[in-house]
Amino acid sequence: MTAICSMIIFQPHGIRVETTEGRTILEVANEAGIKINSICGGEGLCGKCRIIIREGKQNLSPPTEAEKRVLSKEDLANNFRLACQTKIEKEGLIIIEVPPESQIDRQRLLLRGLEREIKPQPAIRKLLLRLKEPSLIDVVADADRLLGAVESQTGLKVKMDYEALKRVPHLLRQGKWRVSVTLWRDEEIISVEPDFSSDLYGFAVDVGTTKLAGYLVDLNNGKIIASASMMNPQIVYGEDVITRIKFASEDEENLKALNRSVIEGINGMILEACKEARVSPEKIYDMTVAGNTAMHHIFLGIPPNYVALMPYSAALQSAVDVKARELGVKINPGAYVHALPAIAGFVGGDAIADVLATEIYNADEISMLIDIGTNTEIVLGNKENLVACSCASGPAFEGAHIKHGMRAVSGAIEHIWINPDTFEVGYKTIDDEKPHGLCGSAIIDVVAEMLKTGLIDSSGRFVTKAETPRLRRKGNSVEFVIAWKDETSNAYDIAVTQNDVREIQLAKAAIYTGASVLMKHRKIQPSDIQRVYLAGAFGNYVDPQNAKIIGMYPDVPLERVKFVGNTAGSGARMTLISIDSRKTAEDLAKRIEYVELGADPNFQDEFLKATYLPHMEPERFPSVMAILNKRSNRL
Amino acid sequence: MTAICSMIIFQPHGIRVETTEGRTILEVANEAGIKINSICGGEGLCGKCRIIIREGKQNLSPPTEAEKRVLSKEDLANNFRLACQTKIEKEGLIIIEVPPESQIDRQRLLLRGLEREIKPQPAIRKLLLRLKEPSLIDVVADADRLLGAVESQTGLKVKMDYEALKRVPHLLRQGKWRVSVTLWRDEEIISVEPDFSSDLYGFAVDVGTTKLAGYLVDLNNGKIIASASMMNPQIVYGEDVITRIKFASEDEENLKALNRSVIEGINGMILEACKEARVSPEKIYDMTVAGNTAMHHIFLGIPPNYVALMPYSAALQSAVDVKARELGVKINPGAYVHALPAIAGFVGGDAIADVLATEIYNADEISMLIDIGTNTEIVLGNKENLVACSCASGPAFEGAHIKHGMRAVSGAIEHIWINPDTFEVGYKTIDDEKPHGLCGSAIIDVVAEMLKTGLIDSSGRFVTKAETPRLRRKGNSVEFVIAWKDETSNAYDIAVTQNDVREIQLAKAAIYTGASVLMKHRKIQPSDIQRVYLAGAFGNYVDPQNAKIIGMYPDVPLERVKFVGNTAGSGARMTLISIDSRKTAEDLAKRIEYVELGADPNFQDEFLKATYLPHMEPERFPSVMAILNKRSNRL
Repeated sequence: MTAICSMIIFQPHGIRVETTEGRTILEVANEAGIKINSICGGEGLCGKCRIIIREGKQNLSPPTEAEKRVLSKEDLANNFRLACQTKIEKEGLIIIEVPPESQIDRQRLLLRGLEREIKPQPAIRKLLLRLKEPSLIDVVADADRLLGAVESQTGLKVKMDYEALKRVPHLLRQGKWRVSVTLWRDEEIISVEPDFSSDLYGFAVDVGTTKLAGYLVDLNNGKIIASASMMNPQIVYGEDVITRIKFASEDEENLKALNRSVIEGINGMILEACKEARVSPEKIYDMTVAGNTAMHHIFLGIPPNYVALMPYSAALQSAVDVKARELGVKINPGAYVHALPAIAGFVGGDAIADVLATEIYNADEISMLIDIGTNTEIVLGNKENLVACSCASGPAFEGAHIKHGMRAVSGAIEHIWINPDTFEVGYKTIDDEKPHGLCGSAIIDVVAEMLKTGLIDSSGRFVTKAETPRLRRKGNSVEFVIAWKDETSNAYDIAVTQNDVREIQLAKAAIYTGASVLMKHRKIQPSDIQRVYLAGAFGNYVDPQNAKIIGMYPDVPLERVKFVGNTAGSGARMTLISIDSRKTAEDLAKRIEYVELGADPNFQDEFLKATYLPHMEPERFPSVMAILNKRSNRL
Repeated sequence: MTAICSMIIFQPHGIRVETTEGRTILEVANEAGIKINSICGGEGLCGKCRIIIREGKQNLSPPTEAEKRVLSKEDLANNFRLACQTKIEKEGLIIIEVPPESQIDRQRLLLRGLEREIKPQPAIRKLLLRLKEPSLIDVVADADRLLGAVESQTGLKVKMDYEALKRVPHLLRQGKWRVSVTLWRDEEIISVEPDFSSDLYGFAVDVGTTKLAGYLVDLNNGKIIASASMMNPQIVYGEDVITRIKFASEDEENLKALNRSVIEGINGMILEACKEARVSPEKIYDMTVAGNTAMHHIFLGIPPNYVALMPYSAALQSAVDVKARELGVKINPGAYVHALPAIAGFVGGDAIADVLATEIYNADEISMLIDIGTNTEIVLGNKENLVACSCASGPAFEGAHIKHGMRAVSGAIEHIWINPDTFEVGYKTIDDEKPHGLCGSAIIDVVAEMLKTGLIDSSGRFVTKAETPRLRRKGNSVEFVIAWKDETSNAYDIAVTQNDVREIQLAKAAIYTGASVLMKHRKIQPSDIQRVYLAGAFGNYVDPQNAKIIGMYPDVPLERVKFVGNTAGSGARMTLISIDSRKTAEDLAKRIEYVELGADPNFQDEFLKATYLPHMEPERFPSVMAILNKRSNRL
């Protein structure tokens, strides 16, 4: 192999990279920290990694069959390529532009979720100790002297972290025999510091498939003092859980790469939050992590392989405490990271955190909790009995698999309404910028609006007799134009296609089927459900009425529907603040009954019926049908 | 700096090394794994790192002032240099010969010590488990399934090591749900293996200042199945504890280098013993380590700085368990290494191990235990009461600081006798090879013999009136020739000098003073002592009569003196085999009273008087005086 050397400049980042032949632009970009969208795991299928070659076309491989399928002739003529397909072939300068729709930006992330006041009762506490200086007649060793002082102040016989131990001799003298000592669970000294500071911080993390959220908490009072969020950097290895599990299963090195990427992301959030709050990361002595089972396993470096294979066994359900340094998490080196327990299979610590935060485990009334994400967890029940399942709802609500779909960043259309008489379209974009795509809430809106206005029928098919230039045939398909190209920021018409509607039908059917299997399991009717909690980062921007119109959740009166935001984050924070919450979480993990959807004999049938809008059995959605019938009567 | 490249060939090793300018031959040799003697820490003082330049003299720095002091003109003319002073200056080939006396060889190491039968009751045990395979209706996670099986077989709720946890999903399937699980202290699963083997091994290590000894033990029956020993590779950084502590204190990197060198040495012994016994190091699930406080600290990577500074505080006295992987010890990655507790200051886990092995803590009779080494530990007492101290006896008994001193390797003179009439000398060498130096036992012999024959007086001065060509003036000093150059392997007369006698006087005085301070402390007379245990690697080769004649230990009838060999190793093995022994060791660490010799107001006076042969107060050594008087009457 003769390695040749090329220089690539990425715009608008202005980042220069030297690289060798045979590598794809996506690989090079990933390594350079330039995050380019990629949903299909680099297989040339999703078309999300579009880039523009500004210079050096002759040094690159010619367009592949995959690119010819995904990109239009016009695109190819304008030097659009897919980063995952384009390989460096010859030495020389290459200038690449990453257009906004291909950049993984900071998404509009719902950071806070429902918060309950709980009494701080953290796993750690600090002691301020004055030690007697040793002398020839008092020769007790340094560490034993310290352990003795802890015992005489607290009555506790504790162990000492090995890294802390190594630093004890210098620290005691540096602090002139006055030191602060951090105890973990009254069992172990995890840190010794040569000061009398009572600073005591913790960090709670919600590891979502798509996003990470972190909260820096003052454990002296339980208050959040800074927070940070970012896209899960694993996203470059594939957008959904299954793609990542597949990738991790192929090779031990792949698992390591996924693990490192999430750990680095979390370390970045820690630094950001610490900078904002002017806190040293060394003063973070505890951390909790909630995530679905795959995210949890990958975070811990545990192979997630079998989570995706029949019978979908997790490697670990119980809560676990691992030293931050063994994980590479950069907080106090003696600190532990507490990973929340999981229920089963794909229902992980994030669902436990949701249940903790909403407190449905304590309620008399029956609640349904739906944490919408690439993987959607549903929990149903009350204090007597809780059942849970996991639905592979996919990333459509995050804008993926949707032709003009995009994340909820500036310029994304977030709400849409259609005039039932003229079929004219109104929309609102995030930050009121020129639109360049549709985010999840807009996609739900447009499907619901098209259903209400009769542009699509209950099977999801476009009703082509509607008289409007917005409804048009394109190639073999039909699409409805939301924004004309002169309104947009990217000189394309933004439209919703027949295929986009299909994607939404599949995604919402997955969620509804999960809800319906759980209801059947508990013999519960929609009218029995006193409260529907919609959780997840994207929840708050969704129009609950429109979500119900498309049949995403059971027909429950709107006033019973409550958005609770990122409750996974809230639960992670609660377990950070209180060891009682950790105990509750462990109890819940054992108490909540897991329902494997695949094991339900009617699952496929239920799913198929649920792909209809709102459902093949309209009697299940009386309030929705009332709306739809009113509209059609008016027409 | 312009780095130039030289090739050095070391003989007789035949090892070729490429290196750059400015480095000393000693540094280059160390890195190449060629062990050259060095006592003074590379300061050009001890003269132990003599090498011969066979080629490339012109590429080396000229002799330093230090070399001119240490080496004779004849030496310099014969291209002898000190490796620590000789630097590479110019590019080119250099051929170095390391003469036998400068090589750190395999010393004749007393591997075994007194062994007591104890019931195996190790800290670890193995369980063989058959697990139920998971199914869609039995979705318990892998690790929880395993923990559940352990609980149902043993009733124990245990934790799991993080590294073991990460491997559980693959291992359970690899073993087809039949696995062996290793439990540590019934608290933690440290290893899971996909087989049904009950192999259960441990490794016990005695970390001496000068030598390392390791024992591979089958923990199913407590038997040693292989052992290994080597020079402590730290010796290249200085021969005695104080030099090493000083070196470690100078720079954190120095401590790391010392730590790495002993860990690598131990890893080498593990491999050697495992190879001999055909055992995989992964099947070693437990390890114990005994050593003096400095060796213990350095092994654990704890700064030993303050052990050498008033008031001589150790960093840690209690026993501690540290994960092998955190230490870099290459046994099963989940295994713990148990470091024995220490008494205080320089009296470390090796002394505890001695006491354990000799069982003096259980005896009615009063015993004195002397573990002779570079640092000598003494313990005195019985089951009611034990006191201990540490004596800086120095490395003279190991052949260091002695002109023709050498370690107990092939060709070392180990025993000497002098004809009282003719002053002719008889000697015996190790392996009956041609002599090239004196090892410790010979040095004790020759001083005792010279005292008996009147060649020296009780102050240690040579009595120059003795008529023999062996007694001769050399420069400002006097020396007594043991072997003429035509008998030796190195073409030098082997002699004992006035200075050598002084070194022995100081070394034996240090030991005797320790014993005497302890006796005063306990108000004990020599006649009260029912048993003297001489321990340490070198003990067995010493003539106990001659050691008493020079006044090394109190005048106790010879039949009460017992050699017990490497009891530090025995004690390490006992604590490996039995957790009861670990408990006893912890009790002993608390029970044994430490006496700081420096705090005794009469210490200096006692020490000075003890430098006499056998003592300035001859009434303390009645049996020795009887022998000496008989001889002098005969003269």
